[in-house]
Amino acid sequence: MTSKRPGAQAGLRRHNMSLVMRALAAGEKVTRAAVAAEVGLTRATVSTLVDELLAAGLIEERGAQRPGTVGRPGTALALSETGPAGIGAEISVDHLAACVVDLRGAVRCRAESPAANRGRPAPQVLAELAELTELVAKEARAADLRPVGTTVAVPGLVGRDRGTVLRAPNLGWEDVNVAEALGRETVVENEANLGALAELWLGGHESGHGKLADFVHVSAEIGIGAALVVEGRLFRGARGFAGELGHVPVRPDGPLCSCGAHGCLETYAGEEALLRAAGVTAGPALRTAAEAGDEAALRALEEAGAALGIALSGAVNLLDPQAVVVGGPLADLAPWLLPGVRKELAARVTDRQWRPEDLVTSRLGRDGVLRGAAYTAVRAVLDDPTQWIAR
Amino acid sequence: MTSKRPGAQAGLRRHNMSLVMRALAAGEKVTRAAVAAEVGLTRATVSTLVDELLAAGLIEERGAQRPGTVGRPGTALALSETGPAGIGAEISVDHLAACVVDLRGAVRCRAESPAANRGRPAPQVLAELAELTELVAKEARAADLRPVGTTVAVPGLVGRDRGTVLRAPNLGWEDVNVAEALGRETVVENEANLGALAELWLGGHESGHGKLADFVHVSAEIGIGAALVVEGRLFRGARGFAGELGHVPVRPDGPLCSCGAHGCLETYAGEEALLRAAGVTAGPALRTAAEAGDEAALRALEEAGAALGIALSGAVNLLDPQAVVVGGPLADLAPWLLPGVRKELAARVTDRQWRPEDLVTSRLGRDGVLRGAAYTAVRAVLDDPTQWIAR
Repeated sequence: MTSKRPGAQAGLRRHNMSLVMRALAAGEKVTRAAVAAEVGLTRATVSTLVDELLAAGLIEERGAQRPGTVGRPGTALALSETGPAGIGAEISVDHLAACVVDLRGAVRCRAESPAANRGRPAPQVLAELAELTELVAKEARAADLRPVGTTVAVPGLVGRDRGTVLRAPNLGWEDVNVAEALGRETVVENEANLGALAELWLGGHESGHGKLADFVHVSAEIGIGAALVVEGRLFRGARGFAGELGHVPVRPDGPLCSCGAHGCLETYAGEEALLRAAGVTAGPALRTAAEAGDEAALRALEEAGAALGIALSGAVNLLDPQAVVVGGPLADLAPWLLPGVRKELAARVTDRQWRPEDLVTSRLGRDGVLRGAAYTAVRAVLDDPTQWIAR
Repeated sequence: MTSKRPGAQAGLRRHNMSLVMRALAAGEKVTRAAVAAEVGLTRATVSTLVDELLAAGLIEERGAQRPGTVGRPGTALALSETGPAGIGAEISVDHLAACVVDLRGAVRCRAESPAANRGRPAPQVLAELAELTELVAKEARAADLRPVGTTVAVPGLVGRDRGTVLRAPNLGWEDVNVAEALGRETVVENEANLGALAELWLGGHESGHGKLADFVHVSAEIGIGAALVVEGRLFRGARGFAGELGHVPVRPDGPLCSCGAHGCLETYAGEEALLRAAGVTAGPALRTAAEAGDEAALRALEEAGAALGIALSGAVNLLDPQAVVVGGPLADLAPWLLPGVRKELAARVTDRQWRPEDLVTSRLGRDGVLRGAAYTAVRAVLDDPTQWIAR
């Protein structure tokens, strides 16, 4: 039987090589034998692939491993600290940032500058961002790293071309071509999506069955951002709008939201609502007030937590995720916010097993989005190492 | 390079054969050339596959097609009206039903009996159901059909083995092994899931980009059932509990729900709440009252519609489906229920394109679940025709 499947063999090689790279990304100092056992290929196949990856400088040997075990000790393998790297950049209303991560996901260079980006001309913002990314790229090249792609995180809606910001209300942007301004190998992605991907790739959370692969990730800066990861992939929805937790109705007759509807989660737990209720003007002040036991701040956080819990209960009832992860700036407020979230989830997710520990706080902190952006290009190398070898 | 992938060639044959079968399932009287063009295989490959499928009796020729076009007219192909068939069975609180569908999805035999199943011993219910399925199977065999599998729809939670009902509160069932009672080739599935799959497979709805493949399907009998279809597959969630729209909070301080939470959708739009608000005792009476313009009935339906719309707005904001499909018994009430749903969706899905026509009513009527159950076995034949050929 004939079939139009040219390159099936090349596809297989790519697939197997990616399996090996990802096994090394997940494990620490693993041997050829361990990789073979994990990915289900023969040792001979793995050895061939490993030799190619060593020659390409994508992985390196780290000396004998497990000397205590029976038989010839295997040589430990690890992803390289040099070679392909990813650049991440972030545009938020009050700052710009850029960083470089290596194949292992470690942040190797980082630069940041405060900037009042709301309403500023986009070309100006992008020129400054280009300077920052060039700065970290230069530093990376000096450390023998080769940046292979840049991902820019934006608080807005990104076009299907992954190069244009269609709409970023908090920046005042419409139809801004970021890829053109920053160069061909640049892609743009919504910050909430990158926060969720960072959690998937680098978060280090486990579920009962291995790595956490089905979760709702919630973060917030001005708005409430959420993103869904399903079976280890970002869930974008039919038109790319999935994850709008901020506009899930909490109280149908509640306050008017900027979107035109009433009682959306954002009117209770968005930054503006939260700061107003707490009587402070900025996020750090809210945290300080909460730490000092300020009553208005504590009440505001408790109520925002309850609203978040109500909206998340709906999401959990619909999606049945393994976990809900709270990340980004919200994670800083976890001690005061999460009790309310937890209480509502316990009261409203009644039809299935839901344990308090299924609500977790991200360990990535405020840098989650930026690291997720940077790791995007690295992930592309792990998914298809052959492309890198062919260069 | 070697690899542990025995049977890659067999897999390819299975895949290609399935492509051909599914092209025939989707189209009407298509030729070999049309199939080749549609599925992206060469004409020679398609001809070989078609010959095998003809020999196995899975498809049949229907005479020359498109005589008006240039060149030799192709012979029209169609799925057989005989051969493999699927049995569907349904257990609800007030009736049992069974049917047989052929490869084309047409219902060929159907049997039904009213039965007060709530609280009845499960073995008694299953014995009656076995009689019904045997009745339709016998009729099917007389029509030259060969039933290859039975799927039983239940209003409850099904175990991972797909043979056991873990919990069906409205029947009073816990841990009932249905597969054992009905025979080896029987699987059990939640009715809401089957309603959604029926819509996917047989609903005939189109989206802007071909067949509708991403949607939320809502149905209701006693509770509110919903199921999510994503990229043409049932979305089950991490633990199989996805789609619990009935327990999405609509008003956090609303009436106490049977689940223990307050203000769940079911407390507004579940059958019990709806009948109580309308002042009637059964579904058909509600429809009659609404048709007669009874004020209490109309108000009850309007309010239930609004509650459904609020919960669905949350679902749409989270999931970004192409459409929301209302099916099952709810579809009978569409004229009175949907205006409220539509209004809330318009008011609350504000951040993306949402058109009134993205809310649709199923054309499958009350038989959607039963047809989905029956078509499950047929779908398995379409997905792997080689298994059938090997028999």
